[in-house]
Amino acid sequence: MQFSINRQILIKALNNVNRAISARTAMPILANIKLVLTEEGLTLTGSDTDISIETTIPKNDDQAQLKIDSIGGITLPATFFTNIVKRMPGEEIKLANIDGFQAKISSGSAEYDIHGQDVNSYPHLPEVDIKNQLTLPAETLIEVIRQTVIAVSKQLSQPILTGVHFILGGGNLTAVATDRHRLAQRTVPFENEEVNADIIIPGPSLLQLQGMLEEVETVEIRVAANQVIFQLGPNTLFYSRLLEGNYPDASRLIPTEKKTTLTINARELLQTIDRAALLSHEGRSNVIQFDISGEHSIISSNSPEVGKIEEEIFAAETAGEDLTISFNPDYMRDALKSFGDEEIQIGFKTALDPFTLVPTNNATNFIQLITPVRTY
Amino acid sequence: MQFSINRQILIKALNNVNRAISARTAMPILANIKLVLTEEGLTLTGSDTDISIETTIPKNDDQAQLKIDSIGGITLPATFFTNIVKRMPGEEIKLANIDGFQAKISSGSAEYDIHGQDVNSYPHLPEVDIKNQLTLPAETLIEVIRQTVIAVSKQLSQPILTGVHFILGGGNLTAVATDRHRLAQRTVPFENEEVNADIIIPGPSLLQLQGMLEEVETVEIRVAANQVIFQLGPNTLFYSRLLEGNYPDASRLIPTEKKTTLTINARELLQTIDRAALLSHEGRSNVIQFDISGEHSIISSNSPEVGKIEEEIFAAETAGEDLTISFNPDYMRDALKSFGDEEIQIGFKTALDPFTLVPTNNATNFIQLITPVRTY
Repeated sequence: MQFSINRQILIKALNNVNRAISARTAMPILANIKLVLTEEGLTLTGSDTDISIETTIPKNDDQAQLKIDSIGGITLPATFFTNIVKRMPGEEIKLANIDGFQAKISSGSAEYDIHGQDVNSYPHLPEVDIKNQLTLPAETLIEVIRQTVIAVSKQLSQPILTGVHFILGGGNLTAVATDRHRLAQRTVPFENEEVNADIIIPGPSLLQLQGMLEEVETVEIRVAANQVIFQLGPNTLFYSRLLEGNYPDASRLIPTEKKTTLTINARELLQTIDRAALLSHEGRSNVIQFDISGEHSIISSNSPEVGKIEEEIFAAETAGEDLTISFNPDYMRDALKSFGDEEIQIGFKTALDPFTLVPTNNATNFIQLITPVRTY
Repeated sequence: MQFSINRQILIKALNNVNRAISARTAMPILANIKLVLTEEGLTLTGSDTDISIETTIPKNDDQAQLKIDSIGGITLPATFFTNIVKRMPGEEIKLANIDGFQAKISSGSAEYDIHGQDVNSYPHLPEVDIKNQLTLPAETLIEVIRQTVIAVSKQLSQPILTGVHFILGGGNLTAVATDRHRLAQRTVPFENEEVNADIIIPGPSLLQLQGMLEEVETVEIRVAANQVIFQLGPNTLFYSRLLEGNYPDASRLIPTEKKTTLTINARELLQTIDRAALLSHEGRSNVIQFDISGEHSIISSNSPEVGKIEEEIFAAETAGEDLTISFNPDYMRDALKSFGDEEIQIGFKTALDPFTLVPTNNATNFIQLITPVRTY
């Protein structure tokens, strides 16, 4: 194998593939990136078995200026190889496979010889039998991930809750995540009535995918038995394994009745919650309190060992019964951030029931739910 | 005590004073900031006993808009108080001492009550008997610190070498640091022939001072028996304790003879060394090699378990004997960075003697010295 390529284009491809590479891998060869050069182009692959990313730089890409001298393959240590490429002095970089699994990498006046491993020792990507396929604007999927992945569980003791549940059917995609203390659910339509699937995608996979989605316009989602594949642009595939099991039915958690409602700008409320959290984080119990009394609403937190804070908030509208409710400010902050600068309605039933946050302009398709803390 | 003040001005003062506050302090009250309000203004103090910083916001500062209702003092938890001030919603902030050592902090609609401690429990700043005093442009002192502090020892087993030796006399300030593997020395003139002092300032003090120097034009240095005080602008004092003991005589380490010299741009050489270090860091011995043979100079590194790198460098001028020498690339990188984009001359005697780096335009006032590694 021997080729030369534009260094910046190779860096971009390496940055993508490195998202799949984990510092702690059970298989030493997965600390490597696989490079395969065919007459069509250069394909880079990275994997930690949960996620695999494959990206191809095609021969006919004008920017890449890929010059193929001889085809072949090798695997090279991911971080070390990437740092070498990033630090090289020239615009172009040359790579040649020498003496078995050695690679000679040169650019300008610098030349590295580094040890690789046999490309044939690298595990194969899963072969998948696609059952369902749909296309979404990348921006839409970014939003769905951002709004739901906050609520996945970090507890490995409840593995199924470490993923986001995607329900595809009737031309709608609904994503739900819950860690049993809070829940996030978002629904978006898509243009394919025939798609029907029910999958659980690990939260960490979605976080890595999110970063890569920002570089493309649309994403094609392909669902197989135990894998989901996201095609990003013409040249990049993102594989994630799926979590197996039955996701709990989230819909019954969402209260239907609201006895108190408050309409407010999410970003302004977030700033008040941030100030209260500053104090609750210093104290022993990380709890803040919401008092609604007629038109007056007060956020407060009290930690005898640290001090207290009190702040009046100014809602655009307050309706229903007076209420005092306590909750974890960090759940509230995550939820509020997911609305950006939108106006939201917060709906309470009682001080013991979960309460909901919905955007006032799209109350049926997006909901954040938080379970209160019982303080007595 | 009760006052109101512009929040941004208070944040600026807190940021300065926080430089003296250490997360690990033997005296719990030193995790606090001391606030003292007199008819003249508000004085903030922070200290970790090694460094103390005192800054005053005078009553007549137009931007500060300090309104004094009643004078007094309190100490408040440094990080918590600073975060509160940073997050407050209003342009103005009010602080009042209530119920003994409680502080009520309010801004806009938010109001905190936090616990402080008695201002009288806070240790007094050292009283010092000034023996010598000089003034330098802040920029000059920043440069002196930046160029020498890199060479202080990180080993607490040789405490005297964890500081920079400042020798003041004959209208010159010479700063020297060495960890026995390398040495950095810089001399600058100043306008006071009568000043005569010999002090060792701890490296960590100089690093904190460096950040604060960027905000002022000139700095006044006052030397006492076991303290040095830097006055920054009209309102800020930076105290550092001095290290006690005799600093080794560094001048005899500097070789006077050069058998091989190389003239080159420091920044370009740094990039080559960075690439070689990438490889040497992956291997077991962190060593790179310099081969000078006639007009050809090669930087290389070879780690059998990782691979090797070779790069030709292009010196503006090479003179003297051929030479092969090995050294730690990290010492070389630190030294090269201290020259910025300047042209330097590297002077070698033999492969076993320390070699020197000096700027070609100021060879007598600034020198970096590195001891080679014996590889056989």
